[in-house]
Amino acid sequence: MAPPVAMESQGTAPPNSFSNQGETGGDGGSQKFRVTVVGSGNWGSVAAKLIASNAFKLTSFYDEVRMWVFEETLPSGEKLTDVINRTNENVKYLPGIKLGRNVIADPDLDNAVRDANMLVFVTPHQFMEGICKRLAGKLKQGVEAISLVKGMEVKMEGPCMISSLISEQLKVNCCVLMGANIANEIAVEKFSEATVGYRVNKEIAEKWVQLFNTSYFMVTPVQDVEGVELCGTLKNVVALAAGFVDGLEMGNNTKAAIMRIGLREMRALSKLLFSSVKDSTFFESCGVADLITTCLGGRNRKVAEAFAKNGGKRSFNELEAEMLQGQKLQGVSTAREVYEVLSYRGWLELFPLFATVHEICIGKLPPTAIVEYSEHKPNFSLVEGSAQFF
Amino acid sequence: MAPPVAMESQGTAPPNSFSNQGETGGDGGSQKFRVTVVGSGNWGSVAAKLIASNAFKLTSFYDEVRMWVFEETLPSGEKLTDVINRTNENVKYLPGIKLGRNVIADPDLDNAVRDANMLVFVTPHQFMEGICKRLAGKLKQGVEAISLVKGMEVKMEGPCMISSLISEQLKVNCCVLMGANIANEIAVEKFSEATVGYRVNKEIAEKWVQLFNTSYFMVTPVQDVEGVELCGTLKNVVALAAGFVDGLEMGNNTKAAIMRIGLREMRALSKLLFSSVKDSTFFESCGVADLITTCLGGRNRKVAEAFAKNGGKRSFNELEAEMLQGQKLQGVSTAREVYEVLSYRGWLELFPLFATVHEICIGKLPPTAIVEYSEHKPNFSLVEGSAQFF
Repeated sequence: MAPPVAMESQGTAPPNSFSNQGETGGDGGSQKFRVTVVGSGNWGSVAAKLIASNAFKLTSFYDEVRMWVFEETLPSGEKLTDVINRTNENVKYLPGIKLGRNVIADPDLDNAVRDANMLVFVTPHQFMEGICKRLAGKLKQGVEAISLVKGMEVKMEGPCMISSLISEQLKVNCCVLMGANIANEIAVEKFSEATVGYRVNKEIAEKWVQLFNTSYFMVTPVQDVEGVELCGTLKNVVALAAGFVDGLEMGNNTKAAIMRIGLREMRALSKLLFSSVKDSTFFESCGVADLITTCLGGRNRKVAEAFAKNGGKRSFNELEAEMLQGQKLQGVSTAREVYEVLSYRGWLELFPLFATVHEICIGKLPPTAIVEYSEHKPNFSLVEGSAQFF
Repeated sequence: MAPPVAMESQGTAPPNSFSNQGETGGDGGSQKFRVTVVGSGNWGSVAAKLIASNAFKLTSFYDEVRMWVFEETLPSGEKLTDVINRTNENVKYLPGIKLGRNVIADPDLDNAVRDANMLVFVTPHQFMEGICKRLAGKLKQGVEAISLVKGMEVKMEGPCMISSLISEQLKVNCCVLMGANIANEIAVEKFSEATVGYRVNKEIAEKWVQLFNTSYFMVTPVQDVEGVELCGTLKNVVALAAGFVDGLEMGNNTKAAIMRIGLREMRALSKLLFSSVKDSTFFESCGVADLITTCLGGRNRKVAEAFAKNGGKRSFNELEAEMLQGQKLQGVSTAREVYEVLSYRGWLELFPLFATVHEICIGKLPPTAIVEYSEHKPNFSLVEGSAQFF
């Protein structure tokens, strides 16, 4: 069955780039934008739903929103894309939610991005390098990108930002969108917020806000790509700490203290790594709100709680196998990566919470170490001028 | 029975003021300090315990810590002060916890403060005006004060800070100590933090830190009395909002968003009221951590949850009578006071969350209004230059 609104896109030769001033929308001569979502998991599907409702409503966007789907054959024998296009539901990753009739699932990545001038990346982070390699050189000039991908790697020489990967490999400007975003809660239109981080061009950021913002999903732009993106990764380390406190049954008071110290270390490390990072970013949804959500629910917190309940006697590997069917916790690998950076740069003494989380994860310290005083007093005197970052 | 360490204080003519340079401690000629705690409720008793452990250990303080107790006769017929001095426990307000042998309960306020040069105020806020009137003119020059009193009133012309009341009536410098402090959790030595707000003199702030700080209670000084003190009051309004979200069963995502918006309004209102208030204060224990604790536990949250569960059909008066034996929620009165300030100054449109909480409390809006988009977008254009405060 043909996608319901495909005709418009197939038949009208849409603009191929952001800079195509010849193509105008119905709102008085301004540019018109065509959006493709690269990814179709749980969060990708919710993103497509948000975007589709705005693209349909606003004249500055073409109605059709293409969604690249990594093709799968369902138990029924049907292709996932066919079912999405027939039912308007991602029956595998977001069942029960209508994405909007203007969302077109496309199994062909090259085809899906060909006509777009706004690209939304929302895949597991380990796919991003391959996707970028495949798309390199194939996009027209002036395409704008945004990354919703969480969980970049933190390499010893510094974090490998997904937004930088996209910018460098695809030669495009790349914003990020992060926040306290539990996909299934937003899918049923519960009130939530998010943060768009942008580098220079505020107009582009506002365009992304237009595309994502709804009555139940409030999006705020901030000029701080690195700060916003680092929040989305570092919070998982703090969630492990919060989970340890839960497992030790220390109460809300201690948990709040650990979350606060975690937020402080997130902020200080981000600022030490990128001097452009702003304090105010940590008051945004991507900062304090996402941290709260992740430390109240979330699987990093949950498995860490089980780890502490067992006094650290059952390893994360073992608990992940049992509780997550062998999937790995991002927090555990991020904690290790952060530890390597801190160690490499001589900053271990400045970040006692981050360091302690890793040492608990690998069994070097018991879970109770998370609330030991000596572990939580950063020693600024070891790194000249470091106190200003805290 | 005589208080166990009273002899020392009765017999040695302790210094009557901070500026008494003649009195020196055992640490090489520096001044020696004598502390009195004014108040002996749940939090006051925990404060006395923290202080007593440090006063006993550090040579710059006299061992004895006097605690003024509003005298009561217990069901056994004994006086509360006698039982405290015999057992070292505040059997009524903090049973089961040893306060330290150097804590002396004293039912006579004038006598309790006479020899002190460091005064810790920790009573219900409605008692403070009377206590200040009674003590005015009776303290020696140079006495230092700190207020742990939460719940100052917010009057139309601005907040009536307890620290200002103390400073003005007693002609003393007054710091504040606030934070994520559930008294019973700190009493059993669970890890926690607190913030000391000071005005000018950092040395005095450090002295308070020395007096309160323990291995499980980490205290940080910040130069922002008003910011720290306002946090302790305004958080209760946000806790009502968080409780509404809980009652509506909106999930962690929405709750985190509402808490974040609440923190933003706390920060913006504090800065609009006092230009000296610093953003960084809201990253301290008194800010984000206390907010988290209060929005996870706490009675403001709990009664607000019940209110929303009942769709606002049972009033706060009714629920308070049932759930709190008629005690009143601070959040409800603070929300009303804040509303009056906002209304008086023409700021209602800038603080949609604070305004909505009050309108829900009085039944003008349904509890669901807390998550309605239009309520959460401050209209900066109505007050020139206001955007900078958010």
